[in-house]
Amino acid sequence: MSAAVRYGDPAAVLAALNEVISLQLAHRSVRRFGTRDVTDDELAALVAAAQSAPTSANLQSWSVVAVRDHARKVRLAGLAANQAFVAQAPLFLVWVADLSRANRLAVRAGARVAATDYLETTLLGVIDAALAAQNAVVAAASLGLGTVFVGAVRNHPEEVAAELRLPPHAVAAFGLAVGAPDPAEAAGVKPRLPQAAVLHREWYDADAADAHIAAYDERLSAYNSRYGLPGNWSDRVLARLRGPASMAGRHRLRQTLARLGLPSR
Amino acid sequence: MSAAVRYGDPAAVLAALNEVISLQLAHRSVRRFGTRDVTDDELAALVAAAQSAPTSANLQSWSVVAVRDHARKVRLAGLAANQAFVAQAPLFLVWVADLSRANRLAVRAGARVAATDYLETTLLGVIDAALAAQNAVVAAASLGLGTVFVGAVRNHPEEVAAELRLPPHAVAAFGLAVGAPDPAEAAGVKPRLPQAAVLHREWYDADAADAHIAAYDERLSAYNSRYGLPGNWSDRVLARLRGPASMAGRHRLRQTLARLGLPSR
Repeated sequence: MSAAVRYGDPAAVLAALNEVISLQLAHRSVRRFGTRDVTDDELAALVAAAQSAPTSANLQSWSVVAVRDHARKVRLAGLAANQAFVAQAPLFLVWVADLSRANRLAVRAGARVAATDYLETTLLGVIDAALAAQNAVVAAASLGLGTVFVGAVRNHPEEVAAELRLPPHAVAAFGLAVGAPDPAEAAGVKPRLPQAAVLHREWYDADAADAHIAAYDERLSAYNSRYGLPGNWSDRVLARLRGPASMAGRHRLRQTLARLGLPSR
Repeated sequence: MSAAVRYGDPAAVLAALNEVISLQLAHRSVRRFGTRDVTDDELAALVAAAQSAPTSANLQSWSVVAVRDHARKVRLAGLAANQAFVAQAPLFLVWVADLSRANRLAVRAGARVAATDYLETTLLGVIDAALAAQNAVVAAASLGLGTVFVGAVRNHPEEVAAELRLPPHAVAAFGLAVGAPDPAEAAGVKPRLPQAAVLHREWYDADAADAHIAAYDERLSAYNSRYGLPGNWSDRVLARLRGPASMAGRHRLRQTLARLGLPSR
């Protein structure tokens, strides 16, 4: 995969390139899966890759629930914005920001882990889960498997927690649908912002970075129109972040996390 | 790299293995760096890999500040628990959960992005940053570079924001020191929890998972004692999460984020 495709820009070139980075550049979200299963050996490799990611102070504040049961995937799809590919994927991995393990250690030791009440520790669990999951995404790609993240498991976190029998102090951070890509799926590699729009040197220069957004808006309009989608990037960002009404219930997440034992003080 | 080393368990074997997954399994944190620089071509490859990671709704809610200036790295090290390797690394990348770009789009369009006031959107920015950064970690490894994450940039987020001139609605989520590993550094691959302690099938089974912690405590005690460090894993988790006094100031993160324009409602 070339940088030109990644950026939707024929002028984009990378001098330092190898097979691993090429694999990463080729990432696209897969939302239609073939019929072949993801084997237990493959699942073990994805989880080992995930566990090999860095984790804050080796706390390993995450867990993953591997869902293969079709009825359960259908129920999870229903809780996650009715995205049919959640049920269609042979494997649905739910990545859990898990401070419950530490709380169980504390109960058994007669100790306290009051730090898990704080926003810092919620973030720590979510960051640990994300680093792990991204390693699984790259490992999956290396095995010829496609993936797509599902943030919509945060639309109804309590119902997802009940479905997966999550203990207190744990929350589903995001899902990941995994399977062999259906070659009939048309989606391509979505161009990203020019590197100069996100990379700053020594300090953050908003004017210099934002000067590259107009060209990107044009590129993404062209890309989207190929798939029959309207709008440029800026329009879509503004629509998505307009306010509570555009958040699919997730504006209540802080209150929900508190009920799940992660008060995020 | 074998799964046996990753798990500190001679019985751990992976049937699905390839060069990419082996590279991931071999991950260790590097905290001593050689003298060679990280080139601009390598930096461009790391950022392109980072941008290739999935991002929620293509919002790309992150930025990265590449710090090479020695005086600035020294100041950042001072803000990040005085970890000398922050200044010693030739390149220090600060990954920013960046909702400021969307806010600037809104100002220019005469629109509002009220969603950036919510915890959901802070998490979204942090998750986007983590997915991107982990791709950079793997890309760095593929180029022979070592890395270590620095969560301690969250010890003093306002001072870090001032140093990097971050605009409102942006916060440094974590740093990443990057450089060629110093071959004289002794640190090895730290064993992780047994896979059965973090992987659940269909639903979360705390008793089954936690049954594997005792064996891990023994393995990590043995590993730590090789490096002159006391304690098993459970003891270290309990010490780290005891409460505000063990959090290096990060128990105030929620209030600090509010002042940085991310009220995380």
